[in-house]
Amino acid sequence: MNDYPKYIQDLILEFSKLPGIGYKTAVRLSMHIINKNLEEVLNFSNSIKSAKENLKYCGVCGNFSEDETCFICKDSSRDKSLICVVQDVKDVYAFEKTRSYMGVYHVLHGVISPNRGIGPETLNLEGLIKKVNSQNIKEIILATSPTLEGEATSIYISKLLGEKNIKITRLAYGIPLGSDLEYVDEITLSRALDFRRDF
Amino acid sequence: MNDYPKYIQDLILEFSKLPGIGYKTAVRLSMHIINKNLEEVLNFSNSIKSAKENLKYCGVCGNFSEDETCFICKDSSRDKSLICVVQDVKDVYAFEKTRSYMGVYHVLHGVISPNRGIGPETLNLEGLIKKVNSQNIKEIILATSPTLEGEATSIYISKLLGEKNIKITRLAYGIPLGSDLEYVDEITLSRALDFRRDF
Repeated sequence: MNDYPKYIQDLILEFSKLPGIGYKTAVRLSMHIINKNLEEVLNFSNSIKSAKENLKYCGVCGNFSEDETCFICKDSSRDKSLICVVQDVKDVYAFEKTRSYMGVYHVLHGVISPNRGIGPETLNLEGLIKKVNSQNIKEIILATSPTLEGEATSIYISKLLGEKNIKITRLAYGIPLGSDLEYVDEITLSRALDFRRDF
Repeated sequence: MNDYPKYIQDLILEFSKLPGIGYKTAVRLSMHIINKNLEEVLNFSNSIKSAKENLKYCGVCGNFSEDETCFICKDSSRDKSLICVVQDVKDVYAFEKTRSYMGVYHVLHGVISPNRGIGPETLNLEGLIKKVNSQNIKEIILATSPTLEGEATSIYISKLLGEKNIKITRLAYGIPLGSDLEYVDEITLSRALDFRRDF
C-alpha cells in the first residue's frame, strides 16, 4: 500500500546503483525527473544512451574516445616518449586541466586489489609492456592514487619494467598548495618533511 | 584540449541539472555510467524514459499514477471525507509510510513563493475547492512543510476555505522523537513549550 508506483520504484533502484547515491537521494532525483517536462527527460535519457553507445576506449592509451584513437594520442605535438600511467580515465582529465603535461597517458582501468579479487591480469598492462618493448619510451610516470592499492600497483609496474632501461618516476608527495598545515594529516606532513628540498 | 569528449560533456551537463548534483559529482556519475556494460546503461536510460512516459497525475488528488485515478483514491476503505493537503507527491509517500493515515490526499504541486514568482494560481487549488463544494468533506489537514512558504500557503488555503463549515487542522509542532534537546533549534523548542500538553 505504501509503495511508490512500479515505474518510480524502478527508477529509484537505478539511481541507487550510482556511486554515492543513497535511497533518499534516489527518491528525490526520481521525483525531480518525473516532474520535468517530457523533452527534458528524453534529453537526459538519450544522453546516457548516446554516451555509452558512442564512446569506446582508445586503442593506444585506454582513454575514452569517439574514434579508435583518442585526441591526445592523435596529437603530433605530444611527446610519445613520456607516458603517465593513471588508474582511471578521469585522472587523464585531471592532468589535462593543469595544461602543463605534454606527454601521453596510459590508463590501467583499475588498481591491484587482492581484497576485492582484482589481480594484475585484469589491468590494462599488456598494452603498456608492448609500448615499452616496441617504442622509444624515455620515461614512465607512475601516477596511481596515493592509497595502499595505488601504491601496490605502482610497485608492481615498476618491478615489471625494472629490467628495461627506462626512467621510472612517481608524483611528488607533500603538502597540497593552499592548505593549512594544521589540517594536513600526519603521514602527508611526515612525507613532506622526509622529501624536503633546498629553498 | 583539456575537455572531455562531447558525449561525456553532454552527460555531465544533464547530471548537473539534477538537484544536489554539482559538477564533480556529475563527472563521477558520468564516468561510472560509461564504465558499466551496455545492458545496464540501457536499463538505466529506459527506466527514466518509461517512468516519465507511463506516469501521470491522479485526476482526483494529484498523486503520481499509472491510471487516471491513483491507488489511494481508488481504495474504497480510505476515508474520503478526510483530506491531507501536501505540497509534493513525495509527502504522500512519507505519510503512507506511517501506516496510520486512512484518509486521502490532495497534492498542491508547490507552495506560494512570491520571491520566485509562484502565486496561488499555479497551485492545484481548484480541485481542492471543487471537492469541498461537491463532496461531504469533514476535515482538511494542512500538511505543508514548516517553512515560511509552506506556512504562507497553509494560511492562504485556510482563509480560502474559512467560510465553509469544515474542520481545518494542521500538523503538531514540537520536538522530533528520538532527538536530543541540546540539538533542537530554539524556535522548535519554544513551540514545543507553547503547545505543551498535560502528562
